Amino acid sequence: MKSEEILLFTPREVQRLLTLDECIAAVEKAFGLYGEGKAAPPGVLSMHSPGGGFHIKAGLLDLQRPYFAAKINGNFPENSVRFGLPTIQGVIVLCDADNGTPLAVMDSRDITSLRTAAATAVAAKYLAQPDSRSATVCGCGTQGRVQLKALSRIRQLETVFAFDKSADQAQRFAHELAADLEISVTPVGDLAAAVRKSDICVTCTTSQQPLLSLGDVGPGTFIAAVGADNPQKQELHPALMAQNKIVVDILEQCAAMGDLHHALESGQVTRADVHAELGEVVAGKKAGRESQEEIIIFDSTGMALQDVAAAAILYEKAERMGSGVRLNFAA
Amino acid sequence: MKSEEILLFTPREVQRLLTLDECIAAVEKAFGLYGEGKAAPPGVLSMHSPGGGFHIKAGLLDLQRPYFAAKINGNFPENSVRFGLPTIQGVIVLCDADNGTPLAVMDSRDITSLRTAAATAVAAKYLAQPDSRSATVCGCGTQGRVQLKALSRIRQLETVFAFDKSADQAQRFAHELAADLEISVTPVGDLAAAVRKSDICVTCTTSQQPLLSLGDVGPGTFIAAVGADNPQKQELHPALMAQNKIVVDILEQCAAMGDLHHALESGQVTRADVHAELGEVVAGKKAGRESQEEIIIFDSTGMALQDVAAAAILYEKAERMGSGVRLNFAA
Repeated sequence: MKSEEILLFTPREVQRLLTLDECIAAVEKAFGLYGEGKAAPPGVLSMHSPGGGFHIKAGLLDLQRPYFAAKINGNFPENSVRFGLPTIQGVIVLCDADNGTPLAVMDSRDITSLRTAAATAVAAKYLAQPDSRSATVCGCGTQGRVQLKALSRIRQLETVFAFDKSADQAQRFAHELAADLEISVTPVGDLAAAVRKSDICVTCTTSQQPLLSLGDVGPGTFIAAVGADNPQKQELHPALMAQNKIVVDILEQCAAMGDLHHALESGQVTRADVHAELGEVVAGKKAGRESQEEIIIFDSTGMALQDVAAAAILYEKAERMGSGVRLNFAA
Repeated sequence: MKSEEILLFTPREVQRLLTLDECIAAVEKAFGLYGEGKAAPPGVLSMHSPGGGFHIKAGLLDLQRPYFAAKINGNFPENSVRFGLPTIQGVIVLCDADNGTPLAVMDSRDITSLRTAAATAVAAKYLAQPDSRSATVCGCGTQGRVQLKALSRIRQLETVFAFDKSADQAQRFAHELAADLEISVTPVGDLAAAVRKSDICVTCTTSQQPLLSLGDVGPGTFIAAVGADNPQKQELHPALMAQNKIVVDILEQCAAMGDLHHALESGQVTRADVHAELGEVVAGKKAGRESQEEIIIFDSTGMALQDVAAAAILYEKAERMGSGVRLNFAA
């Protein structure tokens, strides 16, 4: 691309171009580089607004070439009721990290969904039992759908249980995903019973109270706790975390706003109890799963490097395919 | 505009739409709201990259409607030599602060220039002698040009001296601006002599040593120190600051990277010696110029709220005129 052009991706173009497999590979690469110490810790800037707030996540990643990306997301929980708008809206700005040139601007929504699900898939690759066949999805919204699709790229799932506080949602989810993935997806009303029968469990809700506690999870289970992205949200009981192996995406961020935050506050877990950051596992610096029996919890709060990786592969693919809207940015 | 559209402004469109007068009015409004306590302190996030870095400045401003903007700028000092590219490149993302919807993405370069010059003009309005007729511009690059144009909207300048470490640059500047503004602009080799004959002096260089000291400035002068935007840069001698009234754009930012930073480090100035933030003067909470004789120094490091204000008026004007490139952002 000429340096005086900028490339734009609408939501539809992002959906068309970014595949889960590519996103999983890119996110694994990002975690690996971070784990090897080859990527600086990403930056976060938050500003509150009446009714919501804006969150900027930025990071640098040296792929085939060095990239910088900043994601600017508005998060307004009342949007659906007040305006008929999505809670989270935003854009990602991708730049050449060699010279600062802006390369592309793209809608952030699907990239956020896909890169979040991709992190779960990468975590499952290293932390779930290789022969995992069953999973429970707790939280049957948009993110739950992408999470299950991503997991099914990594493990040969045969049986899935769908739980949601809205039975209707769970029903719709089961119907839709069973057809899409051609596997058994059953809506359930008893979360703990489903989890006890599952090799994998993903929680992706907006819950502010624990949904799963110590007795609810059987040996060998891999749990990805994805919902908590602010200090109020919580999905796992501190006791469940205290008794099992904890892997986080970024320690400090999880300590501030993940399920780890509540576990630390309860006094039942210390930072030293955290086994690893996922990047250290991907890079081979720390062990992943070490036995068939252990329960492993992945606390996922979302890392800017996932956005950089996803934005970069989207951009590179669009360059190869001649996609996206090109805008003359010559001064 | 429909909520599922985003508006894009190329550098040329920004140049065409944003006028100095509108920008000065918008920036005065931004400083005023900040001074009245009606705008939260803006946020800054910086990340280093080999050869440069990225700086994000973000702020919220409640104008006719509430806006949020984040400016993502790359700053790569070797760009001109290495790539034939500008040192600073970037974009501004403007959002509706009521619901987070991204409204517009625009090139940041001219907005940064204009809003920086506009801050100097606003400062001059409150801090320079009303009958100022003469000015010295120290640093005859792009920013110097815009600075002089902005000052000439606020004060009836008749005599301007142009100083640059490159005499050629000063010569070209004088030639060009004299024709443009239809006033006398003379290149000079003795900065101090020129400043002593001037009511106003703007320094906008990349200097890392003081260019002006105590004896170089006559009574009644207004000095705007615009160049320092990182802790290494410096244009004014601490003694000059210690003996005179200091007004800053944002106290903490100036203390970290403005000329104030060096004055504080020298021990000759304390934070308590700073007379006011410009917003407090605009809001009428602190006095501006209080005598004909006093020398007043404005330390300008650049505030995100200037970007928000400039981006917002650009956007509103484009909406009225039907300008900009519209992109369908429906999910």
